Amino acid sequence: MEIAELGEFGLIRRLTEELKIENSTTLKGVGDDCAVLSPTEGTQTLITTDLLMEGIHFDLTYFPLKHLGYKAVMANLSDIYAMNGTPRQITVSLAISKKFTVEDIEELYNGMKLACEKHHVDIVGGDTTSSLTGMAISITAIGEALPKDIVYRDGAKETDLICVSGNLGAAYMGLQLLEREENVYKSQVQDLQEKIKQAKATGDSQKLSTLNSQLSTLSQPDFSGYEYLLERQLKPEARRDIIEALAKANIHPTSMMDISDGLSSELMHICAQSHVGCRVYEDRIPLDYQTAAMAEEMNLNVTTCALNGGEDYELLFTIPLSQNDAVNELEDVKVIGYITKESLGKVLICRDGSEFELKAQGWNPLQ
Amino acid sequence: MEIAELGEFGLIRRLTEELKIENSTTLKGVGDDCAVLSPTEGTQTLITTDLLMEGIHFDLTYFPLKHLGYKAVMANLSDIYAMNGTPRQITVSLAISKKFTVEDIEELYNGMKLACEKHHVDIVGGDTTSSLTGMAISITAIGEALPKDIVYRDGAKETDLICVSGNLGAAYMGLQLLEREENVYKSQVQDLQEKIKQAKATGDSQKLSTLNSQLSTLSQPDFSGYEYLLERQLKPEARRDIIEALAKANIHPTSMMDISDGLSSELMHICAQSHVGCRVYEDRIPLDYQTAAMAEEMNLNVTTCALNGGEDYELLFTIPLSQNDAVNELEDVKVIGYITKESLGKVLICRDGSEFELKAQGWNPLQ
Repeated sequence: MEIAELGEFGLIRRLTEELKIENSTTLKGVGDDCAVLSPTEGTQTLITTDLLMEGIHFDLTYFPLKHLGYKAVMANLSDIYAMNGTPRQITVSLAISKKFTVEDIEELYNGMKLACEKHHVDIVGGDTTSSLTGMAISITAIGEALPKDIVYRDGAKETDLICVSGNLGAAYMGLQLLEREENVYKSQVQDLQEKIKQAKATGDSQKLSTLNSQLSTLSQPDFSGYEYLLERQLKPEARRDIIEALAKANIHPTSMMDISDGLSSELMHICAQSHVGCRVYEDRIPLDYQTAAMAEEMNLNVTTCALNGGEDYELLFTIPLSQNDAVNELEDVKVIGYITKESLGKVLICRDGSEFELKAQGWNPLQ
Repeated sequence: MEIAELGEFGLIRRLTEELKIENSTTLKGVGDDCAVLSPTEGTQTLITTDLLMEGIHFDLTYFPLKHLGYKAVMANLSDIYAMNGTPRQITVSLAISKKFTVEDIEELYNGMKLACEKHHVDIVGGDTTSSLTGMAISITAIGEALPKDIVYRDGAKETDLICVSGNLGAAYMGLQLLEREENVYKSQVQDLQEKIKQAKATGDSQKLSTLNSQLSTLSQPDFSGYEYLLERQLKPEARRDIIEALAKANIHPTSMMDISDGLSSELMHICAQSHVGCRVYEDRIPLDYQTAAMAEEMNLNVTTCALNGGEDYELLFTIPLSQNDAVNELEDVKVIGYITKESLGKVLICRDGSEFELKAQGWNPLQ
């Protein structure tokens, strides 16, 4: 169905009419000039927002809309967890061009709803409008936390241990894989189309029929063996479980942020804001087997991918040295180094013992 | 300066390094995963957001960037006032294409800062990224209000008076004027360029020189006499003053919203959500002299412009009949009709006494 058939208010009604409200702090969701929230007494409010543009942040030729919606929400929830908070609400603004149908936007929204349900978050408002060219998605997430629980980026202290959750670089390798397979597929299509053109020109009807049947059955890429990399790229999970595990273990990080631009870039932020240096050990950086295998297949240095590949949405945090034992008992958390004096710089210690100054080559959408 | 020279973090630093924090409720602004706010005890939180796309919501050939920034903020603050709340913070997300310089984005940001300063609002976060084509601006505003003060759209009751602030249709007429003058200017340029081409072809160097000088001195449009219309389109003001005046006069509206899509469209929302009808008098709809003059010049029906022209950012509200005297004493507020039973419909009573069913022809960006 074309979106113009429904119009703005019709589309909004269709997308939002079945929205459930899960949080008692959500007093009024979609439908007025503003959403109205009732902050839990004693908590502070956390706000984060981002803007995703088609062609810059996502390529719809290989990114399913439902996954896109899911990921767009997760990226924002991840920022709330990175403050050690609990996400409660989001607003969703969409700009959509004429190429999208009502069903497309419902798919996108279904992915968003799924992410929200998983994290008990309410969609409370937004804006829906048109775009001349691609799609734009802007999400704002609202969360809350007790003042004593909030973790900033500027609290890392000398001798603190540096920890990361999960493993790194897999989302980046998933993206490389998707892009490679898309290029292979495209060049196969192009090749066949060229041959079909020639067959038409020479009037070779038998060849034409063979080629057309080849084109119609051209197989979709086979990703078997690399499912985990795709999942990390297409369906990342914000690490609520880590926040809960830290609370349960009574570990209060001294600094924390989520890894969206790459480990190097995020470490630089924590060091800069905390006025400290760091020493990180290459052999401690957690990697999945598929990440390593894919890097080898593509002739990429896996450490570089883990340091600079973005979109992992894992948590990077520092804890006092005294909590070493407690953190070692946590599942899916690894100590990768420690905090030093600022004057000692930000150092990566390689497997062979050589040392390098860490550089942020994080993904920079403005360069 | 090209934006790539600074990169994302450099640009953000440049735009935000001098941001002042005006509200004690703003604990942490730009610089972490989230902004951290401390809601005033006893208040509820108001959230509104919108997404503006170049070519859909604004045309940069005649919309100065500073005004665009100012207006984008005002549109969001207006939504907070329309709940009878006080705006406290905004987040600003921008997607920018290569055609913009650092100075352009500073201009845009300066307009936003000006609007924020005027309303004592803090810029506490956002996102800055690139776009393949046009500019996208997404703003989220956060405000607060005591529960007893918040005004929704669904509280209008039979016999309530319908009031509007300021005057209507001027922003729409300003847009018509800008578009007309842009077309005139463009066709003059085109015309001269065509003549220059001919002069070049025939080698008439004297004529060529005359034409080139005409092109370089082609006058910019003269808007004298219509300055107010331009101001309403380019530099709208959110009506904090009306909210303050209502509070001072002890008038508590039963329903309220801001007029961004046009009076008709907004009246339909209030009637639908409050399950009531209305009777509105054409001769009571407040118009500025320039709006009427421009409508006549352009052969447009001024009432249609006032009913359906958007972007006025005036307030539409209903009050109990008993507060008639109090509201009549307010400056810049006019009673334009009253609320009826739902079964009586939504009626416009024209100057000649004839009656029409109100229709929302409000600006619909999805059609």
